[in-house]
Amino acid sequence: MTTTPVWSVDPRTGKQREQVAAEATHREVDLAVRAAHAARTALAPAAVRAAFLRTAADLLDGAAARIVESADAETALGPGRLTGELARTTGQLRAFAGAVEEGAYLDIRIDRADPSLSPPRPELRRYKVPLGVVAVYAASNFPLAFSVPGGDTASALAAGCPVVVKAHPDHPATSELCAALLRRAAEESGLPADVVSVVHGFDAGLELIRHPLVTAAGFTGSIRGGRALFDAAAARPVPIPFHGELGSLNPVVVTPAAAAERAEEIGSGLAGSVTLGVGQFCVKPGLVLVPAGPDGDGLVTALVKGLADVEPGVLLDHRMRDAYVAGTRERAALPGVSTPVAPGAQGEHSVGAGFLTVEAARLLEGGPYEVLLEECFGPVTVVVRYADQGEAAAVLGRLGGNLSATLQLSAAETEGAPGPAAELIGLVTALAGRIVVNGWPTGVAVAPAQHHGGPYPAATSHSTSVGGTAIERWLRPVAYQSVPDALLPPELREANPLGLPRRVTGPASG
Amino acid sequence: MTTTPVWSVDPRTGKQREQVAAEATHREVDLAVRAAHAARTALAPAAVRAAFLRTAADLLDGAAARIVESADAETALGPGRLTGELARTTGQLRAFAGAVEEGAYLDIRIDRADPSLSPPRPELRRYKVPLGVVAVYAASNFPLAFSVPGGDTASALAAGCPVVVKAHPDHPATSELCAALLRRAAEESGLPADVVSVVHGFDAGLELIRHPLVTAAGFTGSIRGGRALFDAAAARPVPIPFHGELGSLNPVVVTPAAAAERAEEIGSGLAGSVTLGVGQFCVKPGLVLVPAGPDGDGLVTALVKGLADVEPGVLLDHRMRDAYVAGTRERAALPGVSTPVAPGAQGEHSVGAGFLTVEAARLLEGGPYEVLLEECFGPVTVVVRYADQGEAAAVLGRLGGNLSATLQLSAAETEGAPGPAAELIGLVTALAGRIVVNGWPTGVAVAPAQHHGGPYPAATSHSTSVGGTAIERWLRPVAYQSVPDALLPPELREANPLGLPRRVTGPASG
Repeated sequence: MTTTPVWSVDPRTGKQREQVAAEATHREVDLAVRAAHAARTALAPAAVRAAFLRTAADLLDGAAARIVESADAETALGPGRLTGELARTTGQLRAFAGAVEEGAYLDIRIDRADPSLSPPRPELRRYKVPLGVVAVYAASNFPLAFSVPGGDTASALAAGCPVVVKAHPDHPATSELCAALLRRAAEESGLPADVVSVVHGFDAGLELIRHPLVTAAGFTGSIRGGRALFDAAAARPVPIPFHGELGSLNPVVVTPAAAAERAEEIGSGLAGSVTLGVGQFCVKPGLVLVPAGPDGDGLVTALVKGLADVEPGVLLDHRMRDAYVAGTRERAALPGVSTPVAPGAQGEHSVGAGFLTVEAARLLEGGPYEVLLEECFGPVTVVVRYADQGEAAAVLGRLGGNLSATLQLSAAETEGAPGPAAELIGLVTALAGRIVVNGWPTGVAVAPAQHHGGPYPAATSHSTSVGGTAIERWLRPVAYQSVPDALLPPELREANPLGLPRRVTGPASG
Repeated sequence: MTTTPVWSVDPRTGKQREQVAAEATHREVDLAVRAAHAARTALAPAAVRAAFLRTAADLLDGAAARIVESADAETALGPGRLTGELARTTGQLRAFAGAVEEGAYLDIRIDRADPSLSPPRPELRRYKVPLGVVAVYAASNFPLAFSVPGGDTASALAAGCPVVVKAHPDHPATSELCAALLRRAAEESGLPADVVSVVHGFDAGLELIRHPLVTAAGFTGSIRGGRALFDAAAARPVPIPFHGELGSLNPVVVTPAAAAERAEEIGSGLAGSVTLGVGQFCVKPGLVLVPAGPDGDGLVTALVKGLADVEPGVLLDHRMRDAYVAGTRERAALPGVSTPVAPGAQGEHSVGAGFLTVEAARLLEGGPYEVLLEECFGPVTVVVRYADQGEAAAVLGRLGGNLSATLQLSAAETEGAPGPAAELIGLVTALAGRIVVNGWPTGVAVAPAQHHGGPYPAATSHSTSVGGTAIERWLRPVAYQSVPDALLPPELREANPLGLPRRVTGPASG
């Protein structure tokens, strides 16, 4: 029996660094899922989960130097960005520990018996229980925050679900390192290590989604890969929820008044947002509606200037580099498309940032121009020059779902002065999961009110993968009718021994 | 161009009563969805929706005599049951009006900007927006509460989503009558009538789920029909959520101590629950685990006695009657299966109630006995005699997901005395959406804490079709980042003009 080796590769050179693991066989995937399933009851006590998540955060922080070095060697994202990403990741683990203790995520509702109603109402007590083993598909572009120790893993563990992560081939060594730390944290918290494990390999990912004991999945990646897994999840004899984040263009609209007021600031801010992380953010602004005319021209000039300072960068792997070079070339070759700063290859392993411009009327012709409405991973954006609000609205009407939409408004518009702002808010609310005004979509705060999702293909469900409500994806409600107090789970007992928040209706108990 | 007539049929005679409508053509389905889509913005103000739902309830109550007469003629469910079902239906519409006004369903979360954090956190304000046009597939067995004016329609309208209902062929006249009243209620509330409409026909149902402007669906019906629609919803270019309730066995476990204490009461209660509505409830107990030995024998005797008093009944249509006769015959013919009261045909149009018994060891052989673990619509149940707790647990381990699971316990067991009760609570929580102790699952209270759903095939999602949280199915979250107050939706403005409940984190605003 042969195994397929999994190599860690340095994207700065394209060279293999070391063999990290082997692709998981059918039997290995099965064993990982069964071990996770067997470990699920150990996760039941909320206090144990909270302690585990905090211990995991501490161990990851303690290994920061090794983690950042490993991740940088595999992704070329740089120590600065990766140090920040690790802080985000451990902050996220601790935030979910707090959410577990606070308990609002259980959405406890108690209806007291009411014999005065017709028909009489029995007592009902409802909370949420964990689904079971969760499959997590790690992202290429966040080797920590959306990978092995990332938000999907943290929220699933917080919910009480064991996790099997399908590692991303762009950072297998970092995945193994983080998995070992998470498993050690489990053991130090009195849990079986198998509450988290990692498998490698494309086929292993498919095996995972089809495994009868897997109950739900989280995914961050491409439309093609995500849709294939979504389809497999839906085609199972027992379908399971698939929470996938697949792709997003993240439109930006600059109003004429904003361009008149802040052309230079907006152009330079845009350059920064497009090139952050070498343009490899899910929320990179990929389509920018800029008014025709001198103010918009000024914005374009500022964008040219902003990009002039940007050093060539290394993408996560050579497949992505090839796709970026080919994708930008295909777009730039369309009639009527200009490249004030041409994006493309720079040397053997790097790429240069750039942008394209096109008139809205051209884009609205459709046909070959449809490609401009597709996400292009990497440091490039498409500036669409529009003649009037009707044209801008028409372009927005051609978009699919998005993670974010951004409006750049003038000072008067932010104060409610008559203008296109109110209509634009309505248009983009229909298109996106997060609306940003006078900021940039890159940088997704981990916060209770955050929503990182949106209409398809931004997400395959109406849930979020970032923020307090991400935990809701891994739970299902159960109602207990007339169940005696002694037999209720502690969360639902009359005396509320865990001190959880509840919504109670009906007459006070006698 | 020919049309296919839709007939109202009297199940008591099998005769056509009247031609009610025609099956909707491709073009008619398209027009209904487009009209609903165009009407969606009119549903935006919460106060308008609440008034509309209350007016609808009033108009339905005002037409009670006509509605009950029509529904009884088409379903043979009887005026008593249908009068109760109408009260449940209008109570549900009013309850959702209250939920809309109260506003907790918007799950508003506000994170104030916090510049002290690293990185600084921007202001985030999150609530939920309606998805758009919802397709509702009416159930056969509840011509009101799970059909045109039922819970799916009420919760979708409450959420702000226009509805196109695919009527059930068992009660087209009642569907048309209720639709006309809902449309009149819309107009009286200043809304376009097209916020609700009805289409007839199997093909129309498929057209509906595939229509690009349909954003979600609710369904109550069979596993086969529901799975076909679920698959179609998942296969769309833009997949949509399909909230289906497909089938449930609703297991009951009687402990030895309960049988020793209350054999007669449990047997007679079971007879009542199995035959309620001629056994056509989604939560009819279809599998009852009864201990072997004299106490269990006493329960069986009481069940025989309870069923002796039950008059033959008329099922909803002749296809169901044929399935009941064939299904009970197939099950009764298995070796080792007894029929203390034989279910089956009674005369040309009616059926008689009955039950089967089988030893757990036989059932656990699998093979042909698997059919005993499938729902059989109609007044029949399967009593499984178990030798010990291990056998009972093994039978439960063979079940798919269920809407409900019921435990019959002794007085000492309800007080927490050592025994099988605690283990049984854990086993059935893994299997079902609602756990009932010392009651019967039939009768699903409309209440804030209710959960009517469960693991597949009980439901295709983790949502509920009954109770306060049913409204959550038709909404998606949107977060507003740094959006000026003047441009926020009123629900999220700092002054909270609508007085909505919110969860706020972060430092107080300056």
